[in-house]
Amino acid sequence: MHFVIDRDIFVQNVNHVSKAVSSRTTIPILTGIKIVADHEGVTLTGSDSDISIETFIPLEEGDRQNVEVKQEGSIVLQAKVFAEIVKKLPEQEIEIHVQDSFVTTIRSGSSVFNLNGLDPDEYPRLPVLEEDHVFRLPQKILKDIIRQTVFAVSTQETRPVLTGVNFEIEDGILTCTATDSHRLAMRKVPVEKNDDELQFSNVVIPGKSLNELSKILDENEELLDIVVTENQTLFKLKNMLFFSRLLEGKYPVTKNMIPKEAKTSFAVHTKAFLQTLERALLLSREGKNQVINLKTLGDGVVEVTAITPEIGKVTENVATQGLEGEELRISFNGKNVIDALKVVDSESIHIAFTGAMSPFVLSPTDHDQSLHLFSPVRTY
Amino acid sequence: MHFVIDRDIFVQNVNHVSKAVSSRTTIPILTGIKIVADHEGVTLTGSDSDISIETFIPLEEGDRQNVEVKQEGSIVLQAKVFAEIVKKLPEQEIEIHVQDSFVTTIRSGSSVFNLNGLDPDEYPRLPVLEEDHVFRLPQKILKDIIRQTVFAVSTQETRPVLTGVNFEIEDGILTCTATDSHRLAMRKVPVEKNDDELQFSNVVIPGKSLNELSKILDENEELLDIVVTENQTLFKLKNMLFFSRLLEGKYPVTKNMIPKEAKTSFAVHTKAFLQTLERALLLSREGKNQVINLKTLGDGVVEVTAITPEIGKVTENVATQGLEGEELRISFNGKNVIDALKVVDSESIHIAFTGAMSPFVLSPTDHDQSLHLFSPVRTY
Repeated sequence: MHFVIDRDIFVQNVNHVSKAVSSRTTIPILTGIKIVADHEGVTLTGSDSDISIETFIPLEEGDRQNVEVKQEGSIVLQAKVFAEIVKKLPEQEIEIHVQDSFVTTIRSGSSVFNLNGLDPDEYPRLPVLEEDHVFRLPQKILKDIIRQTVFAVSTQETRPVLTGVNFEIEDGILTCTATDSHRLAMRKVPVEKNDDELQFSNVVIPGKSLNELSKILDENEELLDIVVTENQTLFKLKNMLFFSRLLEGKYPVTKNMIPKEAKTSFAVHTKAFLQTLERALLLSREGKNQVINLKTLGDGVVEVTAITPEIGKVTENVATQGLEGEELRISFNGKNVIDALKVVDSESIHIAFTGAMSPFVLSPTDHDQSLHLFSPVRTY
Repeated sequence: MHFVIDRDIFVQNVNHVSKAVSSRTTIPILTGIKIVADHEGVTLTGSDSDISIETFIPLEEGDRQNVEVKQEGSIVLQAKVFAEIVKKLPEQEIEIHVQDSFVTTIRSGSSVFNLNGLDPDEYPRLPVLEEDHVFRLPQKILKDIIRQTVFAVSTQETRPVLTGVNFEIEDGILTCTATDSHRLAMRKVPVEKNDDELQFSNVVIPGKSLNELSKILDENEELLDIVVTENQTLFKLKNMLFFSRLLEGKYPVTKNMIPKEAKTSFAVHTKAFLQTLERALLLSREGKNQVINLKTLGDGVVEVTAITPEIGKVTENVATQGLEGEELRISFNGKNVIDALKVVDSESIHIAFTGAMSPFVLSPTDHDQSLHLFSPVRTY
């Protein structure tokens, strides 16, 4: 294998596939990046067996020449040191040349690296997926979905299925749900499909995969194809394939958890309410319990308080819009509500309570495509 | 105590004194910030007994009113939570009012905090220093001195005196030296003095104090007074006093360590040489030893190499100016030389060797006010 490549585009692609490489793998070959050069361009692959990323650098794009392949071939190089080396090379042009017994020379300007490579034939093949179940989303929308749900997945391995986000399509609507059993985040979007009949449920994508995918996605309207199979999913971008395994197990049915009616409700400015809770959390966090209390007062005002006896107390009155229903005192995990408020893009939110001991719902006032559910905390 | 203060100026001052407060102190009162309000303004103090910082906020500055003191008095409040609270308060005006038994109300807009304070009479008094030994430096110069020396102090407590930077004045020249016994960084500047006769030596300021001081210093030409006593030093800025204890013990005499003559020497472009060593370190770091090798070739060229047998090898030829003297092969700790190159402000540096087993000197080519010394590493 022997090729000359543009440093900037190479660095970008090496960084992308590196996201899939774990240094803690028990399979030595997976600590490497597989590089294949052929008559069409250069293909890079990284994998930790949960996530696999493949990117393709074509010989040229528009007027720009990316790569000149002098001899086809392939090699596997240690991902961590290789990614650092290409980033620091002195010149715009990088020459990569595999010598005998997988030793690979990387040359740029007066800098010459010789790295011990690994046999590319030992690198596992990526799965070939049946593309029966495919739908389409703009990159930006998928990035939003991930941002607005993935923070709520469980970090505990006691119920592995809760460490992922559940994807479902019914009647042309994609519903994505994450819950750690104390809070739930849900986001809906209409999908563009290849097949109008597409329906599926219980497709649970690991939170870690979605976080890595999100770093690669751009904030643009470009559509990407999402392929779903029994135990794998594939996100197809221009010149990039992102594979993730799916989590096994039955995701809980969350639809029925969401209360339909409210006993007490109000609307409030999202950012102001977030800042109020952040101030309150300063005190409850010191007490390690993160509990914030909310009480309805008269005249559309609610009182937010937090107490840690050794340190002190904070009280703040918040003006709401349309406070109605029963009087209420409730306590909740302030950090969880803050996490949700941070991902709400709407200017104001609506909160609906069904009593001090029942879950409550937070949702934007201007659309019904997202929703957050919280269990209250018992304080007596 | 009762006053109303501008949030921005208060936050800035609370942040400054917080730098002296350690959460790991064994003296409970020192986890707090002392606040004193009197007819001149508000004084804040933080201390961890090694470093003490006192700042003063005058009632008004120019046209701007900072503080309105309604009742004089003092209090001690937990530094960590107090600093976070004032930063997050909603309005530009903050009211602070001490109630019974040291409970302190902090009010801003609709936000009301009640914090349990501590008895200000229990807060230790700051030392009153004899101002016999005083000299003056522009803030920017002191910031440069710290940046160019403090990285080289020892992090090991086996020889405590080496964890500080040694300040000496002789013939109107301040010399600051740091060494961990493998490398040494030295910076000289002429000082403006109150007293032309001022001379001192073995004033060793802890590296930690200098790092905190550096965060407070501005990049400007404003002069600050530096007071030196037997076991304390005091940096006097406008509206701020920064005290540090000095390290006990005899600082090694470093003057004689610096070789006067060279057997091999060359000059090289600082940034290009830094980048060459950073690339070489990528490989030697993987081998955990950080060793980089340098060899003189013909025609003013030196070869830089690093090897980690499991990973690979890097070779880079560097063009030098004025390479002269004996042929040389030498190995050194690459990280140490990189640290030094990063703080050199001059465009090119001169390196002077006295053989493969003797210390070598790195210095800017355009002035003689700074110098770095390194021990070589024995590789066979």
